[in-house]
Amino acid sequence: MPRSSKPSPLARQDEVPLYRQIYQHFRRAITAGQLSPGDRLPSCRRLAEQFATARGTVDAAYAMLAGEGYVVSRGPAGTVVSPDLGVPSFVKATARRRRSVGPETIDASAPKPFQMGLPALDAFPRKLWAHLVGRQIRRLSSADMTYPDPAGSKRLRHAIAGYLATSRGINCTWRQVLVTHGYQGGLDLAARVLLQPRDQVWIEDPCYPPVRDALLSSGAALVPVRVDADGMRVAEGRIRARHARLAIVTPSHQSPLGVALSLSRRLALLAWANEANAYVLEDDYDSEFRFVGRPLPALKSLDHQDRVVYAGTFSKVMFPGLRLGYLVVPTGLAATFVRASLERYYGHSMLEQEAVAAFITEGHFGRHLKRMRHLYAARRRASADALCETFGNRISLQLQPGGMNLVVRVSGRVPDRKLAKLAQEAGLAVEALSSRVIEHPCGSGLLMGFANNSEQEAATMTTRLERAIGKHLEPFR
Amino acid sequence: MPRSSKPSPLARQDEVPLYRQIYQHFRRAITAGQLSPGDRLPSCRRLAEQFATARGTVDAAYAMLAGEGYVVSRGPAGTVVSPDLGVPSFVKATARRRRSVGPETIDASAPKPFQMGLPALDAFPRKLWAHLVGRQIRRLSSADMTYPDPAGSKRLRHAIAGYLATSRGINCTWRQVLVTHGYQGGLDLAARVLLQPRDQVWIEDPCYPPVRDALLSSGAALVPVRVDADGMRVAEGRIRARHARLAIVTPSHQSPLGVALSLSRRLALLAWANEANAYVLEDDYDSEFRFVGRPLPALKSLDHQDRVVYAGTFSKVMFPGLRLGYLVVPTGLAATFVRASLERYYGHSMLEQEAVAAFITEGHFGRHLKRMRHLYAARRRASADALCETFGNRISLQLQPGGMNLVVRVSGRVPDRKLAKLAQEAGLAVEALSSRVIEHPCGSGLLMGFANNSEQEAATMTTRLERAIGKHLEPFR
Repeated sequence: MPRSSKPSPLARQDEVPLYRQIYQHFRRAITAGQLSPGDRLPSCRRLAEQFATARGTVDAAYAMLAGEGYVVSRGPAGTVVSPDLGVPSFVKATARRRRSVGPETIDASAPKPFQMGLPALDAFPRKLWAHLVGRQIRRLSSADMTYPDPAGSKRLRHAIAGYLATSRGINCTWRQVLVTHGYQGGLDLAARVLLQPRDQVWIEDPCYPPVRDALLSSGAALVPVRVDADGMRVAEGRIRARHARLAIVTPSHQSPLGVALSLSRRLALLAWANEANAYVLEDDYDSEFRFVGRPLPALKSLDHQDRVVYAGTFSKVMFPGLRLGYLVVPTGLAATFVRASLERYYGHSMLEQEAVAAFITEGHFGRHLKRMRHLYAARRRASADALCETFGNRISLQLQPGGMNLVVRVSGRVPDRKLAKLAQEAGLAVEALSSRVIEHPCGSGLLMGFANNSEQEAATMTTRLERAIGKHLEPFR
Repeated sequence: MPRSSKPSPLARQDEVPLYRQIYQHFRRAITAGQLSPGDRLPSCRRLAEQFATARGTVDAAYAMLAGEGYVVSRGPAGTVVSPDLGVPSFVKATARRRRSVGPETIDASAPKPFQMGLPALDAFPRKLWAHLVGRQIRRLSSADMTYPDPAGSKRLRHAIAGYLATSRGINCTWRQVLVTHGYQGGLDLAARVLLQPRDQVWIEDPCYPPVRDALLSSGAALVPVRVDADGMRVAEGRIRARHARLAIVTPSHQSPLGVALSLSRRLALLAWANEANAYVLEDDYDSEFRFVGRPLPALKSLDHQDRVVYAGTFSKVMFPGLRLGYLVVPTGLAATFVRASLERYYGHSMLEQEAVAAFITEGHFGRHLKRMRHLYAARRRASADALCETFGNRISLQLQPGGMNLVVRVSGRVPDRKLAKLAQEAGLAVEALSSRVIEHPCGSGLLMGFANNSEQEAATMTTRLERAIGKHLEPFR
C-alpha cells in the first residue's frame, strides 16, 4: 500500500524528514493539551508499522521528545507524556546548557583568554564579509541615504523570519520582526513599550548584569528569582510577585549558569503570563550553540497567546561590534514597537543590515554556524580537558550541553572575586560567579569563555591560570 | 615699530586672521561683562593704527559683531555695545535663518520634490564614500569586532572636537564628545540623563515634531514657548515655567521658522539656566548652511557655566541614513552620559564612525561643506525665484539667510494643511506650517525643502505646485 493512503495523524510533508514530523506532531499535541501528563504514546513498533518506516525513525523522534522533557520512557511500560508537565513543580533536570555574557569592562582590544560573551573572532570569514559590505556600499542609492525604515531593512526582516521558522520553531511574519540596536537596544524598547515606572519585573538570579542595570535605570522594580538546575524557579516568582508585568528569561542557556529552562517551567511561565496579563522577554542570545542533541526550540514556539517577546542577536553568531539584534513582537504591539524605535533612533543605518541579509540569504550564515558548532565543540572539549587535567579535584566542572562559556566551581576560603582578580592580573579574563548575583548567593565559581581559546592554546592558558590561582584552591571532597 | 612690541589687548596668534582675533576679543569682553551695554568701542581708525593694520580689517571685525547683535553702529557717534544685551527683552531682530526637518512619514524611496530635512543626496560624493568604507571594512580587526566603546570611536570624537573648535567656536575636549544614534538618539540620552518623569521642558512652538513626540513619550511635561523674529521668547518661558529643568532650542535656524535666536535672547536663556539650575539642549542641526554672512557661533560657545548640552548631526552635512550624531556634554556629566549610552545601546558599530572620521580628517568633509554651501545657495535662489515668478503676490516668501528649507506664507480661506495635502497628492513633499504648532497658531504657510531641487527643475516643480494649489491662494495686500 502506498504511504500516502495510510490513515495517519500527520499531514505528510515530504520536504521535512519523517522523524521531525513525528516529533512535531506529538509536541503540538502535548502543548495543546490533546495529550495529558501520564498519557501513553503509541509503541515505537506500532507507529513504525503505521508509517511503513524503520523503527529507528520513531526512536529518534521519541528521543528528541524525551531530551526536551515532553515525554519519559517507562521501559517495557512504554513512553508516556511527562507527568510533571503543566504543573509548576521542580521536576528533575535533564542536564543541559550554558551562557556567555558581554564584557563588564569595555575594552577596545582583541579578546583576552577566557573572555566571556565573544564568539570566535579569529574564525569569522572577514574577507567574505568585506566583500558583502563593499558590494553594498558601492550600490548606495538615494533611497539608502534617506531616513531609514525604523523597523529595519525589509530584506533582513524577511531573512530573520525565515531563519527563525526553520531553526527556532517560531512562526511569525516578517512584519513582527523589528531590527534593534543589539540585544541591549531590544531590551530598552521592550522596557519602554511594556513597562510603567515601578512595574515589577522578574529577573533571573544570578543574572546578566547589563540587563539588571538597564532595568534599574529605567525605573523598574526588580524581582530577583532564583535559578536551579531547571532554570528560573517560576513558582517562586509567582509567590514573590504574582502581578509582575514582565519576566526576562534566558531559556536556552541561562546566563550565566548555562542550565535550560525545563519544559514544565516553560509551560508554567506561559501560564502565569496568560493569567497575569504579563509578558515574557525571551533572550535567546546563543541558543545556536548546543553540542549535545539539537538546539532546544524557543520558548516563543510554545506561546499560543502572544505573551512572549522574543529577542535574538547577531553578536554571538556573527560579532558583537555589529550592534544588530532583533525582536519578534506580538502582532498587536508591532506598531507600538516601531513607534518607540522611531522616537528613540529614527531607524538604523542600512549598510550592515543589508550585508547581514545577504550573508543569511546567500547561505553563508548557515555554513558559518555549522563550522562554529564544530569549532566550539572542539575548543570546549580542549579547554575542559586542560582544566580537569591541570586542576584535578580542586575544581568541579559543570559541563553543560551548550553555550559559549564554562562554569567552574571552586571551593576554599578565598572568595571567587579575589580569584577572578588574580586571574585578571595575569591577563586572563576570568569572571567571578558571585559578581552575577543580585540577592541569592549561588556558591563560588569562575566563569570562563572558551570560544576564543584555540585548541593549541588551551593547555598554556590553563597553566597560566593555575599559576595565578592554583594555590588558593582546596580540593572538593 | 614691530607689531609684537605694540601694547595690545590681544594675545597675537599668527595663524588666526587679525580680523577674527579682534572680533573674538570683543566678543569675549562683552560676554564676560568686561564691556557693558552702551559702552563705546574704540574707533576703527584708532584700532587700525594701534594694530598697524588696514581699517578694512577692523571694519570686518565690527561688522561681524554687529551682524551677530553684540554691537550697534551709531554712525558718527561710533560703535557701542548693544544696549539690549543682558536683558531678556524683545529686541529688534537682525533678520536671519531657516530650518529643515526630518520627514514625518518614513519613505524608503528617493527624495520627492521639496522634501524637508534632506541634504542634496545627488551631490554626495558616493564613490569617495564607498572607497573610505571599503578601506575600513578590509581592515576589520578582532578589536573592531568586539563590543565597541559606548562613547564612540576615539578618532571620530577627536575629529568632531577639532571641527567644533574651528567652525562653531566651541571649546571642548574630545572626552566631552559622545557619538549618538543620530540627533534623535542624542535627545533620548539627554532626556534620560537630565530629566525625571514630569519634569518641565521648554520647547519651541512651532516645533520639530519628532522632538515633541520623543519628549511626550519620555514622560516630560512640555512647556511650548512661542517663537518670534528673535527666536524663542525666553521671557515667556520664564513666566510659564521658571523652574523647568531643560530648554530645547534650535538657535542657528529655528525649526521650522528659520529665524536665529538673537544674542540678547541667548544671554537671557543662559542666565535663566544658571539661575534655575537647568540645562539647555542646543540642536545645531544645520548651522553650517548660511548663505549671508558667516555661520553664527554656537550658543554653546557663550556657555561659561556648562549649562548647555550641544547636539550636532551628520544627517544634514552628510546623509541621514548614516544615523550618526553627537553630543558635547558638560565635563561633570560625561561619565553619566556614557553610562546611559551603555545601558541603551552597548555602543555603536564602528564601521561608519571610522569612515566618517577619515572623511573629516582627510579634508573631504570641509570640501564637501564648501561645495554644498555654493550648491544650496544656487538651489535656494532658483527655487525662490521660480516661486516668486509663478505665484507673484499670492505668496509671501520670508527668505532667511540660512538653512535648507523655505517658509512660504499663504493667505486665503483654504487651510495650509489642505494645501499641503493637495501638493502631496501631486507628488510634491510640501508640509503645512500649522502641522508644526503645539499650542500657539503662527499663521498659514508652506514648508518646502530646496536642497534636492536642481536649478533646472525649479521652474517645472513650481509650475506643478501652482497647478495643484494655485487656485486656492488669494493675493496678499
